[in-house]
Amino acid sequence: MTNLQREDFSKWYIQTIQKADLMDYSPVRGCMIFKPDGFEIWEHIQEEFGVRFKEEGIRNAYFPMLIPESFFTKEADHIEGFAPELPWVTEAAGEKLEERLALRPTSETMIGTAFSNWINSYRDLPYEINQWANVFRWEKKTLPFLRTSEFLWQEGHTAHENEEDARNRTMRMLDIYKEVIEGVLAVPVYQGRKTPSERFAGAVDTYSVEAMMKDGKAVQAGTSHFMGTKFAEAFDIKYLNRDNKHVFCNTTSWGVSTRLIGSLIMTHGDEQGLVLPPKVAPTQVVLLPVGPWKKKPEIVERLEELQKQLKAKGIRVTLDDSDNSPGFKFNEWELKGVPMRIEFGPRDMENNQVMTKMRDLDDKVAVSLDDIEEYVEKSLEEMQVRLLETARQMRSSHEYTNIDTLDELKAHIEEKRAAGEPAGWVLAGWDGTEESEAKIKEETGFTTRNIPFVPAVEKTTCIVTGKPAKHTVWLARAY
Amino acid sequence: MTNLQREDFSKWYIQTIQKADLMDYSPVRGCMIFKPDGFEIWEHIQEEFGVRFKEEGIRNAYFPMLIPESFFTKEADHIEGFAPELPWVTEAAGEKLEERLALRPTSETMIGTAFSNWINSYRDLPYEINQWANVFRWEKKTLPFLRTSEFLWQEGHTAHENEEDARNRTMRMLDIYKEVIEGVLAVPVYQGRKTPSERFAGAVDTYSVEAMMKDGKAVQAGTSHFMGTKFAEAFDIKYLNRDNKHVFCNTTSWGVSTRLIGSLIMTHGDEQGLVLPPKVAPTQVVLLPVGPWKKKPEIVERLEELQKQLKAKGIRVTLDDSDNSPGFKFNEWELKGVPMRIEFGPRDMENNQVMTKMRDLDDKVAVSLDDIEEYVEKSLEEMQVRLLETARQMRSSHEYTNIDTLDELKAHIEEKRAAGEPAGWVLAGWDGTEESEAKIKEETGFTTRNIPFVPAVEKTTCIVTGKPAKHTVWLARAY
Repeated sequence: MTNLQREDFSKWYIQTIQKADLMDYSPVRGCMIFKPDGFEIWEHIQEEFGVRFKEEGIRNAYFPMLIPESFFTKEADHIEGFAPELPWVTEAAGEKLEERLALRPTSETMIGTAFSNWINSYRDLPYEINQWANVFRWEKKTLPFLRTSEFLWQEGHTAHENEEDARNRTMRMLDIYKEVIEGVLAVPVYQGRKTPSERFAGAVDTYSVEAMMKDGKAVQAGTSHFMGTKFAEAFDIKYLNRDNKHVFCNTTSWGVSTRLIGSLIMTHGDEQGLVLPPKVAPTQVVLLPVGPWKKKPEIVERLEELQKQLKAKGIRVTLDDSDNSPGFKFNEWELKGVPMRIEFGPRDMENNQVMTKMRDLDDKVAVSLDDIEEYVEKSLEEMQVRLLETARQMRSSHEYTNIDTLDELKAHIEEKRAAGEPAGWVLAGWDGTEESEAKIKEETGFTTRNIPFVPAVEKTTCIVTGKPAKHTVWLARAY
Repeated sequence: MTNLQREDFSKWYIQTIQKADLMDYSPVRGCMIFKPDGFEIWEHIQEEFGVRFKEEGIRNAYFPMLIPESFFTKEADHIEGFAPELPWVTEAAGEKLEERLALRPTSETMIGTAFSNWINSYRDLPYEINQWANVFRWEKKTLPFLRTSEFLWQEGHTAHENEEDARNRTMRMLDIYKEVIEGVLAVPVYQGRKTPSERFAGAVDTYSVEAMMKDGKAVQAGTSHFMGTKFAEAFDIKYLNRDNKHVFCNTTSWGVSTRLIGSLIMTHGDEQGLVLPPKVAPTQVVLLPVGPWKKKPEIVERLEELQKQLKAKGIRVTLDDSDNSPGFKFNEWELKGVPMRIEFGPRDMENNQVMTKMRDLDDKVAVSLDDIEEYVEKSLEEMQVRLLETARQMRSSHEYTNIDTLDELKAHIEEKRAAGEPAGWVLAGWDGTEESEAKIKEETGFTTRNIPFVPAVEKTTCIVTGKPAKHTVWLARAY
């Protein structure tokens, strides 16, 4: 068997998510179908963020999906950034519309207009809401979960009395993103600031969490934007301050999307298929009867009892008593990335035990049925932690901090390509000019990911010009 | 003070939902904004249905919002029914599309296409999924929550081996709709079958749950459709049956939408504003400090403690310690429909008690702080039951079963109009012809709501023709 994951990562990815029944293509270009197992991962992600947003006092709302063209033009950078990828409704109910309506790529303009109506005084601030919604960006090249013309996301929008409050909210959400993406998806991320050219259209500052996939490429896993008063000025979001003056709010927005599903698959998956972190796995434990067929009814009965026990503990458990062979089932459930497999046959019954296997470990372990509940809980918790640790190790083995010139970078990329290994991420000095940034991209295909808050090394010279570095940035190919 | 609710129910409705901060209009015609309190009601409705769908083994998925024009034309009745209200995307990313894409009014066509790919054998059946989504029907006359161009809903879609299984699923979902709408929203409904002219576009049979609003008009609160093999034939949803033959599936679909929010407001609201059933109220209990200001800090401290106690019991409780006067606050929280108010002042503190008031009752009740937790839980449960009972009484006082001719119906409507009272619902005999149905509508504005499964009276003659009645139908004006 060839190692498809190493030889053709994209092909491995597409095959894996289809075989694992997470998604299907649709007849509409660039729009995918989230099948139940794929969608349930998203539901668990939503639950985890939902709890945290609520603790922050952020409430959910829902805004219209269609945005009048005139709204976009109010903030110049915003329309410039999004215009190239908007789909437009031009007709409805048999008539041509007077004004085109865009399918929202993001809701700043709609929510900004609402905020300008709703916010009057400092007593109304902070005004903080979140929306779970479908959004559209008409993409030329698409990849399921990671880049699709329609995708699902949450977008938070907040308005504040002053810059400090708004910046605190921006940073707090970036911390929550890191907490959930690492703690729940077991995907390690670096927090940092985007360079000006990679900023959200209309933001003063954009911050991101960036994750490394197994092929060494980067995924921007979440972003948090400080808008200053730019959107407030464009949409007239003013309030009466404590000195009785009308002044502009400072606003923020922040979002994560269904691309998180793609990220966790590309971080944990292996040659056998998906590897799902227990906290988001639709099925956490699968129970499989094994051994001679004639004994099966009592085996299945005992497993049904075990299923009830585990369900009562809040564990998502599936009993597969189909007629397929155990070997077939082992493969199928491995492919689906189920964290834990429990086998049980006549001999196990005699010994009052089960055989257990964790998806990310090789060995099987016999466990007494008397201890099984605690063992399952503990094993799932340990796997959750272990996956993050494994991903951190994978990441650190593909990070490079000793590349100081563009020639060295090119040589590094070529060397890795020849060896069939990921080129990974490079921590580089940057003189802060757009020219240098553009040159890196043009000559290597690497782009700036972010300027990490806590770089392992502070680089002193620009990788392009050799001049003093203004920033230390992560460079990588990105999805 | 005039009784606005009786004099101008629509005006009362619009004022109430705006003052209670549930919604706002948007700049896009017919599209509304769900503000946090309005959206949270929807979230509680979603949770209640979500649990029940899961128990039924129905899983959530997500399908693309854009539907190619060619899909609609596959089922003739379907396109005929929806064509007049579709918005179309005709351009994207600066280019004209080769084929127009509709914003989904419902997803039968998209999901039918997917089912035809996914379903192969009887082993795949039943295939049962649900989707929570935004949908579009470009409406000429709109009313917040009840009729908007974009709305939120769930749509379930299932495929089965035979008619019996599909009909069972259709009926089971209608029962779940009744269970939740009555048990959670406290809105009583009648189950029944729609007449052919009121069927879902493309269905063999459409069933509905119909609710009466306080103005006597009807709201179709949910529908469940048996499609037979009509959609399966249009979308080629075939499977290999147990006799090794390729045959068509029987399919169903069923949905409830954000119009449920409008229904519960129009069922329970009163002159003072909203009255929310405890199970869906964003705030179930509001705590209000009263009495001399200087004592306020220790009063608020004790209320904070009470808030913690109640929160620990899973109760959604808000402490309003703003500087507004108690009278202002009483009005504000009544307007918002909060089920229970708890007042607490210095004298209450001395007596170790609070004063409580339920939104739907007149009297205040003093309750010892020692018993408050159980008292609150019990009171909310009782109110939930009471609201349904009150709504049932309201409904039965506006039901008429003794109207046998169109002239009598017209006289009834005229009499009620003159008295400023709701015309209500009329249980009538119907000869089953489209002509009679059309005549009722044309001459009275009443439409057939449904043919109830268990009518209070079986009518024997048609209200229009005097011929023998084929069915006993509910007639009413409807939203």
